[in-house]
Amino acid sequence: MKCRKCGEKASVHMRQHKLALCKEHYLEWVPEQTERFIKKYQMFTPAEKILVAVSGGKDSLGLWDILIRLGYQADGLYLGLGIDGGINYSHESQSLTEKFAAQHDLKLHIVDIEKEYGQPIPVLAEISHRGHGKPCAVCGLTKRHEMNRIARDLGYAVLATGHNLDDEAAVLFGNTLNWSSEYLLRQGPALPLADGLARKVKPLCRFYEREMTAYCVARGIEYIYEECPFAEGSQSIYYKELLNQLETTRPGAKLTFYLRFLEARKSGELFIEKDIERAHLHPCEKCGQPTSAPGMCSFCRTMEKVSSVPAS
Amino acid sequence: MKCRKCGEKASVHMRQHKLALCKEHYLEWVPEQTERFIKKYQMFTPAEKILVAVSGGKDSLGLWDILIRLGYQADGLYLGLGIDGGINYSHESQSLTEKFAAQHDLKLHIVDIEKEYGQPIPVLAEISHRGHGKPCAVCGLTKRHEMNRIARDLGYAVLATGHNLDDEAAVLFGNTLNWSSEYLLRQGPALPLADGLARKVKPLCRFYEREMTAYCVARGIEYIYEECPFAEGSQSIYYKELLNQLETTRPGAKLTFYLRFLEARKSGELFIEKDIERAHLHPCEKCGQPTSAPGMCSFCRTMEKVSSVPAS
Repeated sequence: MKCRKCGEKASVHMRQHKLALCKEHYLEWVPEQTERFIKKYQMFTPAEKILVAVSGGKDSLGLWDILIRLGYQADGLYLGLGIDGGINYSHESQSLTEKFAAQHDLKLHIVDIEKEYGQPIPVLAEISHRGHGKPCAVCGLTKRHEMNRIARDLGYAVLATGHNLDDEAAVLFGNTLNWSSEYLLRQGPALPLADGLARKVKPLCRFYEREMTAYCVARGIEYIYEECPFAEGSQSIYYKELLNQLETTRPGAKLTFYLRFLEARKSGELFIEKDIERAHLHPCEKCGQPTSAPGMCSFCRTMEKVSSVPAS
Repeated sequence: MKCRKCGEKASVHMRQHKLALCKEHYLEWVPEQTERFIKKYQMFTPAEKILVAVSGGKDSLGLWDILIRLGYQADGLYLGLGIDGGINYSHESQSLTEKFAAQHDLKLHIVDIEKEYGQPIPVLAEISHRGHGKPCAVCGLTKRHEMNRIARDLGYAVLATGHNLDDEAAVLFGNTLNWSSEYLLRQGPALPLADGLARKVKPLCRFYEREMTAYCVARGIEYIYEECPFAEGSQSIYYKELLNQLETTRPGAKLTFYLRFLEARKSGELFIEKDIERAHLHPCEKCGQPTSAPGMCSFCRTMEKVSSVPAS
């Protein structure tokens, strides 16, 4: 197969776009497309300060790299979760993130959850009894809270995450199987600002996971290959597998599923419009972040519970 | 496992309901549930005349049997499609349908497509060049048209089909993958009357396919085991397989997917309301059935095309 732009040997073939590109043109195409998505979904402008949530994985490091190449003001935020899992997971991913930041002379904020809250994520999860024996619920809650907190405290207007199409399609698939109105009416590539929160954007939402791998490999970005050791057996991985089956027999099925959903949301032909974000929200009495819970937000309630347990 | 009602050995276990029943109580439960669905979705009353579309398969013969047991006025309609497929498919299914009607002393209308329109379905499909080499598109079009025609001509208020949950969930799944507003806003267990058309209802829409098999076996109903020979490799069978994978790991997933969709439609929390049925419809200038196409409906246009081809 030949590169559509120069006719040389192609190194990446995107069946869903009927497009093949050589390495050089692929490395041009990815930022061009990202720029297109940023504008299409009105994510941010060059004048805004962006905080990129980086985990050391291919998606977030790839995103940071692309935003810098496009000339955006993008700093990084690494959350040290304290996950080992027999592979030194958090330590490795932090090293790779720091290395990337140093190589490109970028500003990286690091928050160590254990230093902030007394315990690493797996222990916080255990003490708080949330999430059926897996730390994923507490981890998600904590990451959301900390990203919002740091963005607000440091004055970032925008919080960018590396969610790719496989991530977004899997979430959409799960929400669709349950027809969860609350989530279906909110999911999208750019969440509007809620009071006191940075705008959340997902500039990679139209790239397949394998495209981000190809981008990082072609760019020579060192990222952590391992998934989080707790991700194994998760529902989202199961949904990704089902969607990949579909994709294999019908190239583009995943992309169509996600894009037609966004179109249906936008057109008003299928879904009602609802200002979900602002409905029933008030500031948490402890941290001030918007919450729908009475009194304190879930995160602060969880941390209260944790801090009331005597250290063992 | 024991029958929940009598404690005897259970013969059917419905994991999605956490319910096991012996043969005798299963044969009571199925009509009771059907009656519940008929009322819940306001399908019809005992005063109305119902035309049941019967194919000789387990679902439609099962449905006819249940409706008669419940005391409804249900006559049958068999459409002779002229499909052989090396297994004498249409002939066998017609014999089984006639046998069932005779055994229960029921009124059965038979329409032979070849006699009405000059050719059996596979030839009509070939001549009309619809459906990418498969007769399924023309078959579906013809069946819909003929069911509507006979119901109207013979004065039936209601047209009942044997679609089960697996059928409905697969259709919903396909419509969801494409976020097809037109179909998503219309799909349901009871379609309201459009001008001149009988109300279309699906009283079995909450039974799993295997439950209908169990019902027919337990009732001793002879039905055609084979699927239509043209169904192999169809999209709907592929979707059924994917949904069955989901069901295996999470019993009830198929039912939840369908029921929550119906709830979301009804609640107004997710979807807009739209009078899809009556939008842009006018009577076909040839047959008088409502159509959105200008002039003639798709069926009449297809048949015009077919009749203009000289017999070979």
